[in-house]
Amino acid sequence: MRWCRFQRDGNTGFGIIDDADTVTVIAGSPFGNYAVTGETHALGDVKLLAPVVPPTFYAAGVNYREHVTYAASLRGEEPVFPREPHVGYRAVNALVAHDDPIVIPRDASEQVQYEGELVAVIGRKCRDVPEDEALDYVFGYTIGNDVSERAWQKSDRTLWRAKNSDTFKPMGPWIVTDLDPDDLHVTITLNHRVVGEYDVRTAIFGVARYISAMSRYMTLVPGDVLWMGTDGATENMKDGDVVAVEISDIGTLRNPVRREAGADGG
Amino acid sequence: MRWCRFQRDGNTGFGIIDDADTVTVIAGSPFGNYAVTGETHALGDVKLLAPVVPPTFYAAGVNYREHVTYAASLRGEEPVFPREPHVGYRAVNALVAHDDPIVIPRDASEQVQYEGELVAVIGRKCRDVPEDEALDYVFGYTIGNDVSERAWQKSDRTLWRAKNSDTFKPMGPWIVTDLDPDDLHVTITLNHRVVGEYDVRTAIFGVARYISAMSRYMTLVPGDVLWMGTDGATENMKDGDVVAVEISDIGTLRNPVRREAGADGG
Repeated sequence: MRWCRFQRDGNTGFGIIDDADTVTVIAGSPFGNYAVTGETHALGDVKLLAPVVPPTFYAAGVNYREHVTYAASLRGEEPVFPREPHVGYRAVNALVAHDDPIVIPRDASEQVQYEGELVAVIGRKCRDVPEDEALDYVFGYTIGNDVSERAWQKSDRTLWRAKNSDTFKPMGPWIVTDLDPDDLHVTITLNHRVVGEYDVRTAIFGVARYISAMSRYMTLVPGDVLWMGTDGATENMKDGDVVAVEISDIGTLRNPVRREAGADGG
Repeated sequence: MRWCRFQRDGNTGFGIIDDADTVTVIAGSPFGNYAVTGETHALGDVKLLAPVVPPTFYAAGVNYREHVTYAASLRGEEPVFPREPHVGYRAVNALVAHDDPIVIPRDASEQVQYEGELVAVIGRKCRDVPEDEALDYVFGYTIGNDVSERAWQKSDRTLWRAKNSDTFKPMGPWIVTDLDPDDLHVTITLNHRVVGEYDVRTAIFGVARYISAMSRYMTLVPGDVLWMGTDGATENMKDGDVVAVEISDIGTLRNPVRREAGADGG
């Protein structure tokens, strides 16, 4: 099943998208109580929004070997692979939807880069769940682009503007349920050129391991999202580019890139 | 004006508390549209909740000189004072209210410590605001206790369980409007013994400077909270303790401390 969140005529709501790309509007939320209404729209007639605004926005951060090696090389360091699934955070102010522009702040460097990744969306409240039951608490999966300003990532004490500037967290286009996260393939393109691809199952820690470890200390609730990290090296994006993250059986999250007016980055 | 969020008879809502400690229930939210109702309760007859669940939960982290020196000494390092107000994040799963227990995970060390601090609550959407207008966007102020497990804070890649284990973020008891944040005094007690006190105006960066700097990159929205950091050294808390953070003109946030059953920390 495909779930979207959308805006139409000034109203915001959730909907179910069928194979003919018809959106059936629901009353309520898939993360609470809901009822299917008789109202439908063509997918092309609604403005897609980020498919959920998470109560807490978790991110694995460093979870694929090639990317850990790449990130360490940027810092002139040897790679250190995580021994435990320690989770980080991102911020909802930065969320934008499929098709929305990624806006590079005017004082950012040229090193603003994509990170295409799988996103698991929590569907049921959970605390202290074993790994072999953890996927039962997942509502479905969507796609995230963990846009990162590499100069700020090196210079700043936290990841605030490096990872969480407005528009730096495209998520969407929709959530797909009933998938096996270990059977998904990620392809990232920049201006239609493939710049990265990997299999989700090559992650250092999978979705089930993360959820189990996190839930030992933290209650996960419906709508929480867990961004699973990316693999490989990444390239700079500039004004006028189009970046897309495709995940098999989910779809494609595509965003144009703009630089804020008055730019003189470098 | 004093604003609270509360639960009564299974219902959750916001209310205004008068000088006689009577809660007038409002319909809606002070962070959106609301109307005052005719329903009132004695403050003692409602269960206070964390006064807001923030869309994004910001934390200054290191913002007072003595505390930066203390934190560095724990790591065996020289203190490095921040040159810019770079903000960090906390997570809503960890929020609890005044009077709710802080529960120490059973595998935590003995080094679970309080950090009493001022919390600014955003009232109006803002982006790119100058420092001299920034306080116009604050709804009011409350109190936070940034409970921290120091062994995990040293060992883990992120602050996930060190700072964001369930119950590690007491906030409350209410929000007070129309205060000057530079005219507030913080007193922290552990079992009624004063273990720390400081003036908010001695912060490295004040509320206005933080909001102005953050809003350069990020849109702040009503209900977002900014925890301003603590000063001084901190002590361990153990099962049976009571920790309280008092801020002049706001009130007292008090929480009992428990250790999770099956504990063998150390």
